[in-house]
Amino acid sequence: MNRIDVMAGWMPEATIPKASAEHFAPSNIALCKYWGKRDSELNLPVNASLSVSLDTLGSRTRVEPIEAASDEVWLNGVRQVSDSRFARRVSGFIDLFRIRHPELAFRVDTHNNIPTAAGLASSASGFGALTKALVDAFGLGLTATEQSIIARLGSGSACRSLFDGFVEWQMGVREDGLDSHAVALEQTWPGLSIGLIKVDESEKSVDSRAGMQRTKETAHLYQSWPLQAASDLSRLQQAIETRDFALLGSVAEQNALSMHATMIASWPPLLYWQPGSVAAMQKVWRLRAEGLAVYFTMDAGPNLKMLFESASAAALEAHFPGMEIVQPFGV
Amino acid sequence: MNRIDVMAGWMPEATIPKASAEHFAPSNIALCKYWGKRDSELNLPVNASLSVSLDTLGSRTRVEPIEAASDEVWLNGVRQVSDSRFARRVSGFIDLFRIRHPELAFRVDTHNNIPTAAGLASSASGFGALTKALVDAFGLGLTATEQSIIARLGSGSACRSLFDGFVEWQMGVREDGLDSHAVALEQTWPGLSIGLIKVDESEKSVDSRAGMQRTKETAHLYQSWPLQAASDLSRLQQAIETRDFALLGSVAEQNALSMHATMIASWPPLLYWQPGSVAAMQKVWRLRAEGLAVYFTMDAGPNLKMLFESASAAALEAHFPGMEIVQPFGV
Repeated sequence: MNRIDVMAGWMPEATIPKASAEHFAPSNIALCKYWGKRDSELNLPVNASLSVSLDTLGSRTRVEPIEAASDEVWLNGVRQVSDSRFARRVSGFIDLFRIRHPELAFRVDTHNNIPTAAGLASSASGFGALTKALVDAFGLGLTATEQSIIARLGSGSACRSLFDGFVEWQMGVREDGLDSHAVALEQTWPGLSIGLIKVDESEKSVDSRAGMQRTKETAHLYQSWPLQAASDLSRLQQAIETRDFALLGSVAEQNALSMHATMIASWPPLLYWQPGSVAAMQKVWRLRAEGLAVYFTMDAGPNLKMLFESASAAALEAHFPGMEIVQPFGV
Repeated sequence: MNRIDVMAGWMPEATIPKASAEHFAPSNIALCKYWGKRDSELNLPVNASLSVSLDTLGSRTRVEPIEAASDEVWLNGVRQVSDSRFARRVSGFIDLFRIRHPELAFRVDTHNNIPTAAGLASSASGFGALTKALVDAFGLGLTATEQSIIARLGSGSACRSLFDGFVEWQMGVREDGLDSHAVALEQTWPGLSIGLIKVDESEKSVDSRAGMQRTKETAHLYQSWPLQAASDLSRLQQAIETRDFALLGSVAEQNALSMHATMIASWPPLLYWQPGSVAAMQKVWRLRAEGLAVYFTMDAGPNLKMLFESASAAALEAHFPGMEIVQPFGV
């Protein structure tokens, strides 16, 4: 099954965009990672995942029908050449909406307030916001769940960026993926804090899509990943239910390190870490040994995302000057 | 079954040391790692392993019966306090030989010409040399295979240090471990080179024994390790048989990284790498991308051991000044 087949059900005959539209979607940080696809055309995952959305950090995207032969794609105020990877992914995604009228062209203008492609999941918020803007522009009137399914076709983890707070991506079992989407958890956690530190802002040499493919194909150790992720997900749900921060932090950190372990065990080896990543990890472990309740998670990049509660913020900031703190549920 | 039961068969009634004795055993670098025990009393492994012995780098150990209440243990010319971890391991191992006469005491003098406990497997050569010296001093007249079984009781990988060249540790299936010992492979590989670089010479904070225990108990990903090791071993045998250096290097590197991956996936996380380890790995990968046939392996420590052939030595030394090169089979 391909993406067009999935979308066709939501696109009535003769659907044309009614107007321009602009929407925001938050970035999200997975506490249990999405790592490995069972269907790479539809971005159907091997495991369920769980994230927390980053409040006001994310992507704002405006979509506007234009009279032109092809799309115009802008990123952070810069026009992207039409055969760039970014512009092709965006135009390919718009194709899912202009099934009935392939002659339509759009100007897409995206602003991220987080570093692009440095492991901070800008593709999640980007495709989340693009989905909301296109659904609105075409006047489709879809639910958040339906939009989550569509966003997943652009980038897997984008399905989680349709919601705020704690979000679970239910992996589903259907071949068409219509049961593979995110749901918002009802629990909140005032004071839960995410600290972003930048070890390295350079673009990744191997993107997540290629990274997970290589891992799945070449790392023997990957075989144990789906069961681990299932176990981690249920322990995270328990941690959120009981507000057990040590459990939340330790499961999230082990889950992230295990995901990186599967990459390190791939061939050729896939190591997103820089020397500074190791130094930052060692610092976290030292602070924790000294009694500070701080854990970290990492995505497919060199940067660490600290997990802590408000009470530890001041102590932690002294050790990581310049750390940007997000509190998804307020102080 | 305990170690004394295993040794009793080789120790006739009233066995006393006939003289002092001094022997050398080489250090060995595993291309397929020993990682995980199925019996921690007898050091019986979860997987078979394969190493290459480091020629003249290793341990020279002298054993001498003395009139004293307790053993005297010297390491690199320094007397070790009797309740130090090192002295207790040595005396505990001598206990296996003085079953019939527990009143005997020994002076043990070991000299390593490699850094102790910095991931260069000095316990392997140390227990290898100590085994040979004790077997000689007691006049036991045992075969190399029998000595390999005994050395394993001191330190698992020591069983491989009884032999030169390529050495396979056959894991065996018996509960008493009498079929778990090393055998020398007949093949040689003139020009095969091992380059030792020192990222960090500090002592390890978690020793290999504790490290493999933690990994086996807490890392989900460890479940896939035994099958991977079995596959790696057979590919290494093929590489040695056909002198296929790219196969040897790539299997050894992936095996080492996979072992480290199981540690990284443990809880609490076990990372032997330093920032400099990552920088050295990145340098190897860059050189390889530029066409230099160099791979690395790593043990439970921060240091890299380069694998290459003579023809690449000069080019590699330019990038790693101070690298010590060992050629186990000559140039």
